[in-house]
Amino acid sequence: MAILSALVKLSPAAAAAGGSKNGYGDYLIEEEEGLNDHNVVVKCAEIQNAISEGATSFLFTEYQYVGIFMSIFAVVIFLFLGSVEGFSTKSQPCTYSEGKFCKPALFTALFSTASFLLGAITSLVSGFLGMKIATYANARTTLEARKGVGKAFITAFRSGAVMGFLLASSGLVVLYITINVFKLYYGDDWEGLFESITGYGLGGSSMALFGRVGGGIYTKAADVGADLVGKVERNIPEDDPRNPAVIADNVGDNVGDIAGMGSDLFGSYAESSCAALVVASISSFGINHDFTGMCYPLLVSSVGIIVCLITTLFATDFFEIKAVKEIEPALKKQLIISTALMTVGIAIISWLALPAKFTIYNFGTQKEVSNWGLFFCVAIGLWAGLIIGFVTEYYTSNAYSPVQDVADSCRTGAATNVIFGLALGYKSVIIPIFAIAVSIYVSFSIAAMYGIAVAALGMLSTIATGLAIDAYGPISDNAGGIAEMAGMSHRIRERTDALDAAGNTTAAIGKGFAIGSAALVSLALFGAFVSRAGVQVVDVLSPKVFIGLIVGAMLPYWFSAMTMKSVGSAALKMVEEVRRQFNTIPGLMEGTGKPDYATCVKISTDASIKEMIPPGALVMLTPLIVGTLFGVETLSGVLAGALVSGVQVRITS
Amino acid sequence: MAILSALVKLSPAAAAAGGSKNGYGDYLIEEEEGLNDHNVVVKCAEIQNAISEGATSFLFTEYQYVGIFMSIFAVVIFLFLGSVEGFSTKSQPCTYSEGKFCKPALFTALFSTASFLLGAITSLVSGFLGMKIATYANARTTLEARKGVGKAFITAFRSGAVMGFLLASSGLVVLYITINVFKLYYGDDWEGLFESITGYGLGGSSMALFGRVGGGIYTKAADVGADLVGKVERNIPEDDPRNPAVIADNVGDNVGDIAGMGSDLFGSYAESSCAALVVASISSFGINHDFTGMCYPLLVSSVGIIVCLITTLFATDFFEIKAVKEIEPALKKQLIISTALMTVGIAIISWLALPAKFTIYNFGTQKEVSNWGLFFCVAIGLWAGLIIGFVTEYYTSNAYSPVQDVADSCRTGAATNVIFGLALGYKSVIIPIFAIAVSIYVSFSIAAMYGIAVAALGMLSTIATGLAIDAYGPISDNAGGIAEMAGMSHRIRERTDALDAAGNTTAAIGKGFAIGSAALVSLALFGAFVSRAGVQVVDVLSPKVFIGLIVGAMLPYWFSAMTMKSVGSAALKMVEEVRRQFNTIPGLMEGTGKPDYATCVKISTDASIKEMIPPGALVMLTPLIVGTLFGVETLSGVLAGALVSGVQVRITS
Repeated sequence: MAILSALVKLSPAAAAAGGSKNGYGDYLIEEEEGLNDHNVVVKCAEIQNAISEGATSFLFTEYQYVGIFMSIFAVVIFLFLGSVEGFSTKSQPCTYSEGKFCKPALFTALFSTASFLLGAITSLVSGFLGMKIATYANARTTLEARKGVGKAFITAFRSGAVMGFLLASSGLVVLYITINVFKLYYGDDWEGLFESITGYGLGGSSMALFGRVGGGIYTKAADVGADLVGKVERNIPEDDPRNPAVIADNVGDNVGDIAGMGSDLFGSYAESSCAALVVASISSFGINHDFTGMCYPLLVSSVGIIVCLITTLFATDFFEIKAVKEIEPALKKQLIISTALMTVGIAIISWLALPAKFTIYNFGTQKEVSNWGLFFCVAIGLWAGLIIGFVTEYYTSNAYSPVQDVADSCRTGAATNVIFGLALGYKSVIIPIFAIAVSIYVSFSIAAMYGIAVAALGMLSTIATGLAIDAYGPISDNAGGIAEMAGMSHRIRERTDALDAAGNTTAAIGKGFAIGSAALVSLALFGAFVSRAGVQVVDVLSPKVFIGLIVGAMLPYWFSAMTMKSVGSAALKMVEEVRRQFNTIPGLMEGTGKPDYATCVKISTDASIKEMIPPGALVMLTPLIVGTLFGVETLSGVLAGALVSGVQVRITS
Repeated sequence: MAILSALVKLSPAAAAAGGSKNGYGDYLIEEEEGLNDHNVVVKCAEIQNAISEGATSFLFTEYQYVGIFMSIFAVVIFLFLGSVEGFSTKSQPCTYSEGKFCKPALFTALFSTASFLLGAITSLVSGFLGMKIATYANARTTLEARKGVGKAFITAFRSGAVMGFLLASSGLVVLYITINVFKLYYGDDWEGLFESITGYGLGGSSMALFGRVGGGIYTKAADVGADLVGKVERNIPEDDPRNPAVIADNVGDNVGDIAGMGSDLFGSYAESSCAALVVASISSFGINHDFTGMCYPLLVSSVGIIVCLITTLFATDFFEIKAVKEIEPALKKQLIISTALMTVGIAIISWLALPAKFTIYNFGTQKEVSNWGLFFCVAIGLWAGLIIGFVTEYYTSNAYSPVQDVADSCRTGAATNVIFGLALGYKSVIIPIFAIAVSIYVSFSIAAMYGIAVAALGMLSTIATGLAIDAYGPISDNAGGIAEMAGMSHRIRERTDALDAAGNTTAAIGKGFAIGSAALVSLALFGAFVSRAGVQVVDVLSPKVFIGLIVGAMLPYWFSAMTMKSVGSAALKMVEEVRRQFNTIPGLMEGTGKPDYATCVKISTDASIKEMIPPGALVMLTPLIVGTLFGVETLSGVLAGALVSGVQVRITS
């Protein structure tokens, strides 16, 4: 797939050479335009370079700071876990397998720290490569748009798919290798083995947190800054090269929506796998040392990759997009096809990999589960994901009545508009919450916390397709930006705009998936936490738990307050800088002066680097502080509260 | 106090008669203006009549619809409670007093329904009388403003105080009488007696719900409608008589902020009293038939009324307001004085009314509590209320940096403004949540659920002062509107605006109190519910409870979505009607045509009546439906979830 994308040559020499190699001989749906305009291609390459350099330099700076924080946190984790048994190097009785001896706590602390760092690095590499692919594909999409919407769509979608498969498979491969390497030391002590593996999930999601927050602040600040001065005050088109914040805006799409979203879904994926593994290790799979059964979560993900591969062919090879209005249905069809195929895939893998009956740990007792029961758990997660995705899309797409209502209210002014918008945001919570509640209830009833973890995995099993659809949006957005900046004709711009519009709608689907799976994953993790902590009851009627619940429910608001404030102040600085440039650089509005793009990139970079640490620290340190000061009971309350209210805050915002 | 307010004569004859009776001979802080202008007084009286009639007719219409709904709900309650024991008329063994016989369930169902209706009617009458007082005081405040800010302040504040004392005392008296009347039938069966009394709290708060939602929709729709077309599009001043929505706007202040807020606080007050009583009835007070101890919650409220009476004198008699900038500190001082005095009052009453040691029911066991311990519970609620009030004010007053930040962001446009505003809203949650968490933890540790109920009562014990401060705002707002409409000089308008500005800030304090006490009250009710339902553990780890929690946390969003959507569509209709009138009535802008106020009043009335039922039904039917279909466990989860997330949603919005 990467090879196919690369076939679109960007160097002017190759493009000028023309010929069938570049698809010139194909039947073209729309009129070709300026295919041989050497200058346009040179300009596209230049802009692509500027965006790619901006994104790379931002990510490197971000990774330096996050690297320092993660190293400190790794030391904290090591000291924390090691200190539990006083850094003892002696073997000790296992918690769940009576009469057996498990590996010393100090080594488990060491291995946990190692897998934490591995998870963080995998997440980092995934985000970075995703960004590289996207910045490689954006200008190519622009150039393909000269040949028609269909060609451009395929380029953008294939590049998205490359990123999706890269993430899904690298997460899986690294996890599988880590388990097998750690097994060399742990041998039969699966309890310790899979406890140390949980570090992988924590590392992945910690990294995701920073990627998402840092990238999010960057992209929103640049976006608001560019639009407020450019579109509103100066009345110049979006992505106009005269706008000093335009490069920062395009960089933002790549670091926020590509690298950030990639890290985010990777984090959820790693966490749900680890949560499932740790519960399985104290269930019959672990006790009987059934390695195939243990690896069921990984097998589900592997089948997912194969299913997504087949699904992708439906978009790029089996059918061809011929008109703009076919794009959105094609993307949605991707989701439906992958979900349908995956259902069959799960059934097969559940039948092959699992024994007909096995037991699952359920807060102190073992619960009997059949392989078909577990199939239902995964399947309900999968289908709940589809429902949540489509509902989120319904509430954000302008093809349906909710958004039309909001748009309708604009004619009476900003106040009614904000009221309707908020009402819509609140309303969009209802169905997803019911879908999540039903999946939780069913999967928990069948297979306790393990059921919830595999339901989350089911929702994430089509992650490769989801990411392809998701990454497609920012790539098209960038392609439009490049077309505008390179001064290409407005017909090209219209085509990329059409791609972009479809991408914006489908981005909501990806967001819905991310939120739904995050809710299930956090619950699975919460379950894994209480299972391993030996908690058997979290009683709302005890004051320790209740205040944990109420304070925990407040945390997502605190977190949102921090990040929104950061976005606000960064956007403020950006607006002032863009205004300053328009006012002081002679000939900027007339197109004779050159704007200072670098300063705008620097403002977004500095703001997001500086502002990313406090919210990240809030999330990562709260469990440690609460757990140390108030104990496991209050911590359980805080986690449950944050989980319950976090879902709502994320869906509305 | 009512007499003092009434001394300001409104009839032109009396005013023209002049003389010392009207305070004409007093020393005046500011220059008197137009005191003898007969026309102005006539016009004020006319406008006051229009507002009063609009409010009265709205409330009557509202009460008709709510009356039907409440009657149906009363029947449902009766059938529901009666059916539990199959409408048996036989005495049955008591649940908590072993070996004794309690009154038949059918009669308890009957008495519960009766107290439900009594609570609803008391709430209704309180709201109605509050509105009557406010619409009686508004024009009087305008006329007093001619003599200076100080005089106007005293009139507005005294009227607010009349309403505050009326509500606080009527709630208390009706409750006390009901208990004593029911006792004639129940005799020694205090378990049944206080169970049936809980209907009073339910009735009060159900009525409050409708009052708040209906009034809220009315006032917001009218406000947005009037401002958007009048201020923004037509560029005419606020409250300009040419604006067709101006009467609806002023009516809205009275039905929303006065009647609605009054019902709301009354509901919280009735619920916390009932929650405390029902827990006490199965504690040592009830078992030993210690009536003074039982009535401790009522005694706290009575002391509160006396304390507030003394506090009010500080604002009106001990000191005199001489300048505009003294108003806000004077109002805040009211809160501090009442809290300080009340602390002493609680200490005295705890020492006099309570035995040195007694036991409190705590989910299946009895917990020993000292009278000083209970004093701390009440006191911590009281002081937490003060803190929450001041923090809410800090985040809403333009005297401090948070709001200045938001205002600062306006210079870059609406987008950054909304971002900063939301961030601020989210941030304002943090300290109140910690204050609530600490009060819950301390009061629960001392005296279990009873502690939380009396902490809520402590917070509400200064309700009379709180309501006085709160009602003062809309009265001043109305006074300003009347001044504008009556065409009085802009100096009068400046004075009422100054009063109004102080009122807007202190309204935030009242809102803070209402939210804080609602959180404690809901928790106390939740505790009373699980105590009476015999639930001893609500385990988050059970899937039934967990899905209850997550669905419950979604309910406040659903509710908000419903009400916001209603406000939005009502405002939309209002805007269109106001525009229509400006466009079609000849000479309206020039002041020669007369706007059709009645149509605007009708739009607000119809919208709020129609839209008030669904959210009300959502809140009232959810517990019944969930409880019947899914059982007590899930219902506990739903209640806990709604409680936890409701606090956050209310503070931010």
